[in-house]
Amino acid sequence: MEAKYNELRSRLAEIHDLNKVGWVLSWDQRTMMPPKGAKARAEQMATLGRVAHEKFTGDDIGRLLDELRPYGESLPYDSNEASLIRVARRDWDKARRVPGDLRAEMTRTAALANAVWAEARKTSNFGLFQPHLQKNVDLKFRYMECFDEGDEPYDVLLDDYEQGMKTAQVRQVLEDLKRDLVPLIAAIGERADAVDNACMYGHFPVEKQRAFVLGIIRRFGFADESWRLDPTVHPFASNSSPSDIRITTRYYENYLGPALFGSMHETGHGLYENGVSPDLERTPLCRGASLGLHESQSRMWENLVGRSRPFWQHFYPQLQAAFPEHFAKVDAEAFYRAINKVEPSLIRVEADEATYNLHIILRFELEQEIINGKLKLGDLPEAWNARMKDYLGIAVPDDARGVLQDIHWSAGSLGYFATYSLGNIISCQIWEKARTALPGLEDGFEQGEFMGLREWLRENLHRHGRKFTPTEAMERVVGGPIDVGPYVRYLKAKLGGIYGLEN
Amino acid sequence: MEAKYNELRSRLAEIHDLNKVGWVLSWDQRTMMPPKGAKARAEQMATLGRVAHEKFTGDDIGRLLDELRPYGESLPYDSNEASLIRVARRDWDKARRVPGDLRAEMTRTAALANAVWAEARKTSNFGLFQPHLQKNVDLKFRYMECFDEGDEPYDVLLDDYEQGMKTAQVRQVLEDLKRDLVPLIAAIGERADAVDNACMYGHFPVEKQRAFVLGIIRRFGFADESWRLDPTVHPFASNSSPSDIRITTRYYENYLGPALFGSMHETGHGLYENGVSPDLERTPLCRGASLGLHESQSRMWENLVGRSRPFWQHFYPQLQAAFPEHFAKVDAEAFYRAINKVEPSLIRVEADEATYNLHIILRFELEQEIINGKLKLGDLPEAWNARMKDYLGIAVPDDARGVLQDIHWSAGSLGYFATYSLGNIISCQIWEKARTALPGLEDGFEQGEFMGLREWLRENLHRHGRKFTPTEAMERVVGGPIDVGPYVRYLKAKLGGIYGLEN
Repeated sequence: MEAKYNELRSRLAEIHDLNKVGWVLSWDQRTMMPPKGAKARAEQMATLGRVAHEKFTGDDIGRLLDELRPYGESLPYDSNEASLIRVARRDWDKARRVPGDLRAEMTRTAALANAVWAEARKTSNFGLFQPHLQKNVDLKFRYMECFDEGDEPYDVLLDDYEQGMKTAQVRQVLEDLKRDLVPLIAAIGERADAVDNACMYGHFPVEKQRAFVLGIIRRFGFADESWRLDPTVHPFASNSSPSDIRITTRYYENYLGPALFGSMHETGHGLYENGVSPDLERTPLCRGASLGLHESQSRMWENLVGRSRPFWQHFYPQLQAAFPEHFAKVDAEAFYRAINKVEPSLIRVEADEATYNLHIILRFELEQEIINGKLKLGDLPEAWNARMKDYLGIAVPDDARGVLQDIHWSAGSLGYFATYSLGNIISCQIWEKARTALPGLEDGFEQGEFMGLREWLRENLHRHGRKFTPTEAMERVVGGPIDVGPYVRYLKAKLGGIYGLEN
Repeated sequence: MEAKYNELRSRLAEIHDLNKVGWVLSWDQRTMMPPKGAKARAEQMATLGRVAHEKFTGDDIGRLLDELRPYGESLPYDSNEASLIRVARRDWDKARRVPGDLRAEMTRTAALANAVWAEARKTSNFGLFQPHLQKNVDLKFRYMECFDEGDEPYDVLLDDYEQGMKTAQVRQVLEDLKRDLVPLIAAIGERADAVDNACMYGHFPVEKQRAFVLGIIRRFGFADESWRLDPTVHPFASNSSPSDIRITTRYYENYLGPALFGSMHETGHGLYENGVSPDLERTPLCRGASLGLHESQSRMWENLVGRSRPFWQHFYPQLQAAFPEHFAKVDAEAFYRAINKVEPSLIRVEADEATYNLHIILRFELEQEIINGKLKLGDLPEAWNARMKDYLGIAVPDDARGVLQDIHWSAGSLGYFATYSLGNIISCQIWEKARTALPGLEDGFEQGEFMGLREWLRENLHRHGRKFTPTEAMERVVGGPIDVGPYVRYLKAKLGGIYGLEN
């Protein structure tokens, strides 16, 4: 059995290598590749995807998995061996349903669509992007047909990002959230002038932003020998291995917010991948358990850490020293209020903690209308703009700042967005646990000490990689399922304090 | 037959994609990858190499090639179809002899050795590198055993870089060169003081060097939408496709030479790959015909163009404007003499045109002694230093500037070096043809016009990619085999003029 297990492991290692190479190519495409490289790159990614898919879905792997099933079941559930056999089985059953050519076509189409999207976004030209988006959507329909219908078709898409989660559950969670957030945002809106964030705008040279941001994220665990930070159009985190983490950010010379909080966000993703146990390298277990859990990490470092008073207790004097013309006359409390200002705005990734979720709800609803055939892509910009008016009360001036702002649809990622709000919610559930387990956590922040939190997260979540389902991982780390309670309590307390609302 | 041909083409396209991905990974490793990414990267490259090798060497491809042989022979020799079938056949016959595991082991070992070499070079520690070099050499012995013995074992290695070339031929060519160059260098040595190159040393900020270099190579054909220029430890040119060319360079703040001439050199390589006909994309024909021909291009742009009077007629005023503190008081003729100063020196890639070849002869001889078992690796630094003393009359102060200076051996590239001197020689043969075909060529340079040369090279060499053997390509472009005559004449005339030697 051990020989068979080693055989499985070495087959899976090879497939893992190919998949990781795909991530490196995609990172390269979005940070380094000259634009005219897009066509060849699409073919390379399609080929790589097809080869990996064919190698994985072969009968030989299925046979090995069959033979190893009793062996896996005889071992402790959380052992590396049992976990590898169990997770690979589930992946294999799912991958077998998708023909290799469809998989390759999805990869190729998305790689090309991604290049066109970048151009369309630059020129705010949805018409340029629409046919490519249509191809991505058409392929998603073919993809969904490969699976037994769930309760609703969208379940198939969701499962790729948040295994086992149902559309109905997400809808309920988002409804719960909306019910609490809409009145909170409205109450804040009546006191909009209570917070002034003018200090965040002005002139911030890119090199100085980069140096300041690196000063922060190095305290979180970013290390030059195993990380990179590069600029890109739409920030993301990627990696070649747990020792080669690549995060990206976007600098605005006239606005400090995006690079500052975006970098902390991507560092959160990077820390999750960086913290996976070395035992799991070159296996399909070597990555985060789900996107919701991943976002819980990025949003935690961005918001619960990076927008907190204790954090800025430590870093604000450094920020004042780096940009005295902006901050010399702004006191720490005023700065804390500025970075937590709630204000309906156009761009999701730059939204405050409260309105952020309305951006997600908008996308989640539009995706379902597309998948249910209720919304034609030609009408998508209009539907987007109408809902922005409806939910956030603001007019969208152009598609670049509207429907074209996010990379996801160009990359063929439908079903993805909800995981951001799930992440917000989970981040607060984990945060409550961490605070209980680590007394003095926030005193440490005031001293610039973040390793305690990182180690706790590593021990309780990161090191397990993808051994456990999202549900199991939640059970282990917070002792139960997703629950909007802690998140809503956190927002009400924090924002209620800042805006002087009655509880 | 057409269906079978299309089948072959699509199989080869997939393999080509995988090979190109390997080039992108290697570029990434040498320009972008954090050091701790090396271990996973070695596995990724080994896997990719093995998969491509297995796909290529399968019986199915052999069967297709057998079936297509009469079809290929019925078509014009230089047609894309006949060329593809012919070249793929030759590649297949050769690749079939090498077991996939050996191929993967060579890739993995070289990727790791490369990372160790970079570290060893930094700290001038040959002992750190030696065991990795030993592994590379041992694998080369296993590799050579896969082939029928040629006239001598080294022939097998040479054939990987310069197909069909024999060690004995190279030896003869280098002997011919040595016979003419040694007295020339000696005569120049007696007048060493006739040329002063102090203006090339001083303080040259990297960003200003980069801007100036880009100003030059953009005139050669470098275009932002399909090229990149990045810094690296040991400069090289690579590409993901003819529309995605990646060149690298090395900046010294205190010495302008390396970035200036190195960038032109790598641009020459890039132009070759950039000029391959789009018809040949995603086929094994989509790259240069041999390394000797490749070096003929890089050395032509670096030396015959970049170290010529007409070239600096155009660019020298710009250089003076960019670095007035260095060049305001140096006239164009003194600058021309400075960049052509002949002076025995430690580093091959920075050597002048005359002594450069002695660096190559040294390496060629040492490699043969290693391959013939006459030289143990432990004695390599000493042998290197002794020969430097002997051929160039200089003492090597440390291994970083001696035996560790080049990347090639770390990358498992033995048999490669001679192609640099072959390139020097061929560059002058092609140059004589181009000058005859393009009257007024150098008048154009004085106006900053280089497109005439680029188009001529594209038409006569680049567009064919690897359709022709090196011998065939030479026949087509210069009408005959390699001949040291033009190169020796060129050096004697140019350097004789500068140093005022009798002819």
